[in-house]
Amino acid sequence: MNQPIPCPTKIEINEVAPRDGLQIEARFVPTEEKIRWIDALSTTGLRRIEATSFTSPKAIPNLRDAADVVTGIQRRGGMDITVLVPNVKGTERALACQVDEINLVMSASNSHGLANLRMTPEQSLEQFAAILEVTQGSGVFINASLSTTFGCPFEGEVPEVRVLELVEKLVALGIQGVTLCDTTGMANPAQVKRLCKAALERWPETPFTLHFHNTRGMGLANALAAWEAGISRFDASLGGLGGCPFAPGASGNVCTEDLVHMFEAMGVDTGVDLDALLEVAATLPDLIGHDVPGQVVKAGKSTRRYAMPAQRTT
Amino acid sequence: MNQPIPCPTKIEINEVAPRDGLQIEARFVPTEEKIRWIDALSTTGLRRIEATSFTSPKAIPNLRDAADVVTGIQRRGGMDITVLVPNVKGTERALACQVDEINLVMSASNSHGLANLRMTPEQSLEQFAAILEVTQGSGVFINASLSTTFGCPFEGEVPEVRVLELVEKLVALGIQGVTLCDTTGMANPAQVKRLCKAALERWPETPFTLHFHNTRGMGLANALAAWEAGISRFDASLGGLGGCPFAPGASGNVCTEDLVHMFEAMGVDTGVDLDALLEVAATLPDLIGHDVPGQVVKAGKSTRRYAMPAQRTT
Repeated sequence: MNQPIPCPTKIEINEVAPRDGLQIEARFVPTEEKIRWIDALSTTGLRRIEATSFTSPKAIPNLRDAADVVTGIQRRGGMDITVLVPNVKGTERALACQVDEINLVMSASNSHGLANLRMTPEQSLEQFAAILEVTQGSGVFINASLSTTFGCPFEGEVPEVRVLELVEKLVALGIQGVTLCDTTGMANPAQVKRLCKAALERWPETPFTLHFHNTRGMGLANALAAWEAGISRFDASLGGLGGCPFAPGASGNVCTEDLVHMFEAMGVDTGVDLDALLEVAATLPDLIGHDVPGQVVKAGKSTRRYAMPAQRTT
Repeated sequence: MNQPIPCPTKIEINEVAPRDGLQIEARFVPTEEKIRWIDALSTTGLRRIEATSFTSPKAIPNLRDAADVVTGIQRRGGMDITVLVPNVKGTERALACQVDEINLVMSASNSHGLANLRMTPEQSLEQFAAILEVTQGSGVFINASLSTTFGCPFEGEVPEVRVLELVEKLVALGIQGVTLCDTTGMANPAQVKRLCKAALERWPETPFTLHFHNTRGMGLANALAAWEAGISRFDASLGGLGGCPFAPGASGNVCTEDLVHMFEAMGVDTGVDLDALLEVAATLPDLIGHDVPGQVVKAGKSTRRYAMPAQRTT
């Protein structure tokens, strides 16, 4: 057994709200508003923004302006733009827009893969191989997101050995980074710690990102457990935007500003200017037309001070 | 340095919603409804319920029926009834109702003590001494809740050395159990782990309970950190009922069913029948007239399975 990996002193956030958040919104956010929003986000010190998805406009109408968004936003040094692509065609469109990173997606469970992507994991891997031929020599970082890593809403538990087998295949294929996704908020901290330790021990050179949902309130607890296992990269969504079509009323993705707030309070460097991020988060309800689950934007940071109430005289 | 305390395999929940939750509600819940609710809660395997507060009816009108509630509920074996008392008079009223436990409350910070109780910590300790004279020989367990342990909304940080000094005084006074309260949701997991470890190392025989709020989304992460430090007793509030008058719109106490769900998913025995608890939690909106922050009641347990969606043909 190796020495335990120390808790990282720095973490990196990949902001996924423009893609994972907007895709399920009822309202199409106009392209100029998306661009203004992403430009505001990109001044806050986030390491990476998943700006959109190069999907069929029929499949995800909210992101039908993918190319306009990516070519319209300001590209600031130190922050990468990543985009989700579902296939070779999407990859070609993304490469034409000079993205820094491409995020592929597959499911760890057969039934979720079939329901969500109409592909088994093995079919997804074949497609990834075709995509990697297209990206070869582009210098673009290729990440793969593995959905339902901590459980499938149709099948239940996805055996850890199956998850690790799929990671092995992704790494062998030439995928550079792997995101372990708790797609519908089924993970618990003990499970997270176990799988993260196993992955980091086996592939110490592979950047692993953890993607949590707060569907059952465990988003930050799971992020804490992952960090304790040595994970230093997290997906998060401003305001906790996003969600799970199976759990109406439940929380969505883990909330970026709440995650940054927790880690910064713990003395972990996120690289993010939390005050600037909270300012952008406060504009979300106007942008999307409804309240969001984020807590810190409502309560203020834990360093917030209040005036003493006036003494009651009776 | 001692060996690290292992993570407990069993934890105990003290359900505080009937007291900490109801006290700030806009509506007075009729006595019979309170009794029916607590009776339902007491069948779920909870170890302890904080049923009410023997306070002045003027100070907390919602709990003006304290004696009727305590004498009206069914007392089941294996579950203790605890009540909050603010002074000697309340203690006498509580003892007359044959409670199992009395919970005293004081603040770790001067300004919160003055604002909330009109007492400095030292004045509270004097009053506790007077209360302990009254309870002597009663066989009733005496617990003290220490507010603002992890920060004060007026003063900010409360030095750990000050918290430990107050715990020392409580233990020396003859207080049997101590609850460390994150009254306004300022704690972070690193701080929680540090203070819990220090307290457990110094007073290994004292039962420490941790009381968290989810004001900034960290409730379950803080509970996880406390458990990792060796804590096995938690306050929690059904539905996440309760809150902080300074953060309107923010979440309240850590939610009982979400806490039980997390620990049970991790394989930690809470003694609680989660399905039964969720049934009671589902009745909360009717009882109090509004939605509550609890997540698992909306999303279902992580073991919940869904039918595969029908295959789209286009």
